[in-house]
Amino acid sequence: MTPIVIEDGERAKDWRTLESVFDQLLAAHCGRDTVLVALGGGVVGDLAGFAAAVYQRGISFLQVPTTLLAQVDSSVGGKTAINHPRGKNMIGAFHQPLAVVSDIATLDSLPERELAAGLAEVIKHGLTLDASFTEWLEQNLGALRRREPDALAFAVHRSCELKAQVVASDERESGVRAILNFGHTFGHAIEAGAGYGEWLHGEAVGAGMVMASELSMRAGLLSAREAARVRELIQRAGLPVRGPAIPPEQLLQWMRVDKKAGGGRMRFVLLSGIGAAQIRADVEERAILEVIRACSAQSQ
Amino acid sequence: MTPIVIEDGERAKDWRTLESVFDQLLAAHCGRDTVLVALGGGVVGDLAGFAAAVYQRGISFLQVPTTLLAQVDSSVGGKTAINHPRGKNMIGAFHQPLAVVSDIATLDSLPERELAAGLAEVIKHGLTLDASFTEWLEQNLGALRRREPDALAFAVHRSCELKAQVVASDERESGVRAILNFGHTFGHAIEAGAGYGEWLHGEAVGAGMVMASELSMRAGLLSAREAARVRELIQRAGLPVRGPAIPPEQLLQWMRVDKKAGGGRMRFVLLSGIGAAQIRADVEERAILEVIRACSAQSQ
Repeated sequence: MTPIVIEDGERAKDWRTLESVFDQLLAAHCGRDTVLVALGGGVVGDLAGFAAAVYQRGISFLQVPTTLLAQVDSSVGGKTAINHPRGKNMIGAFHQPLAVVSDIATLDSLPERELAAGLAEVIKHGLTLDASFTEWLEQNLGALRRREPDALAFAVHRSCELKAQVVASDERESGVRAILNFGHTFGHAIEAGAGYGEWLHGEAVGAGMVMASELSMRAGLLSAREAARVRELIQRAGLPVRGPAIPPEQLLQWMRVDKKAGGGRMRFVLLSGIGAAQIRADVEERAILEVIRACSAQSQ
Repeated sequence: MTPIVIEDGERAKDWRTLESVFDQLLAAHCGRDTVLVALGGGVVGDLAGFAAAVYQRGISFLQVPTTLLAQVDSSVGGKTAINHPRGKNMIGAFHQPLAVVSDIATLDSLPERELAAGLAEVIKHGLTLDASFTEWLEQNLGALRRREPDALAFAVHRSCELKAQVVASDERESGVRAILNFGHTFGHAIEAGAGYGEWLHGEAVGAGMVMASELSMRAGLLSAREAARVRELIQRAGLPVRGPAIPPEQLLQWMRVDKKAGGGRMRFVLLSGIGAAQIRADVEERAILEVIRACSAQSQ
């Protein structure tokens, strides 16, 4: 076994780190029958997964996620990637792991902030796909934040189940899988605009989901009461409900380059109720700017 | 349409060029619905194909090969890659083009040396897969070198046909596709050992096929007369039949790191007659060194 250690944080998801992984694999004479084990959080999973996807045109890999975010989201579905200075996850591949092995015990040492960031994706799965799971979350957020093993195990299991159902019906994101991007078009722009690493991915998605709910409400799809429920759930999870102090036009510019912007037309995942989502390509830039203004720090 | 121009030669198949392609695609706001058109030789096809394979986790691309080598070989089969200082095509993906469009007229301006390099792969398809096509080549090498359109069109068409049959039955090279590597384990080592760009790929494969035939003869699979036929065909195509003046041990070291060396065991494609090949993992390093010595410049 050859251990390869990479630096901590989203900044490690770059060319330089990827190249050093290849250097070490080649120095160890790793052939096509090598199995890469991605032990760590989402950064390790994304980077190691992409390294496995393209090393000698593809080798096998195993996901062993050690953060809540990676256990409930990034380790499931086969998306792998690195970042580009112009945007997150711009270079990558669809490459399924042999298996995903999640050990809840690894969450004991997870910092508070990262636990909350993981809950963002759990909440996303509830809000977009399952009303009763959302209600369970509303009742069990306290238990999850206290890291009660039974609650965590159920949340991880149900999240993976929901995500796997969506991915199985649309691995390459040509349709319904895009629902999993709820809060992410705003979220990616927040991450990029603030500088990678300043905001945790889950934190950006938290604020992004509030923005997307606000947009859903303005589009007449979500009631004010439902939008308030979304906001409260995200706030109770310990997540930010406002974007950073970045000019709205600048955030919009980051959204334009986001990969979900197919053919120049931005697509948004909107809620049409708690536990129900739809993909819309008819959102006006004016409405987006209004929502960013209403939900960002400088507008307070 | 956004033109992206890369430098000439195998050296362009690197990280730096790939990154500049991504920079330009992102600067032009190319989304997931972009179609990359790979207009050029094998380097352009391999690099643009790999860029398409991983840009935003995969976009479509079209192969428009303009060299004989690319028309008969690299544009068919979906193999894409860049090189690593430690070895050729070490980082890549299997990514099929939408279509391959070959125009024989582009071969009119092809330098003599590159025409010969392309013939190496045509000869490879004959030697490993089709005895009667090999005989046709023995009779029509003159017409091919004079670039008679009918002869070229037939050679390109038959080469693609033969290669496509093999690829269709084993896209990811888990078995029979490896037959297409005839002459390539030696060839890649020659290219790497001499420094990328010194030898054309097809030239290295030419000398590599002579070495592989010599190895086949020593293994008792090929008669001396058949090995002489192989050598003569390669020589008549204007290709080198001897390797460069590199110490045999050094060439062997390059072969060890070659991606065909799965699990530390080198696999060789040997001929068991004209038009028939087999994959062997039981070749002794001593025999390889003897063959390199017998077929390299310093032993003359």
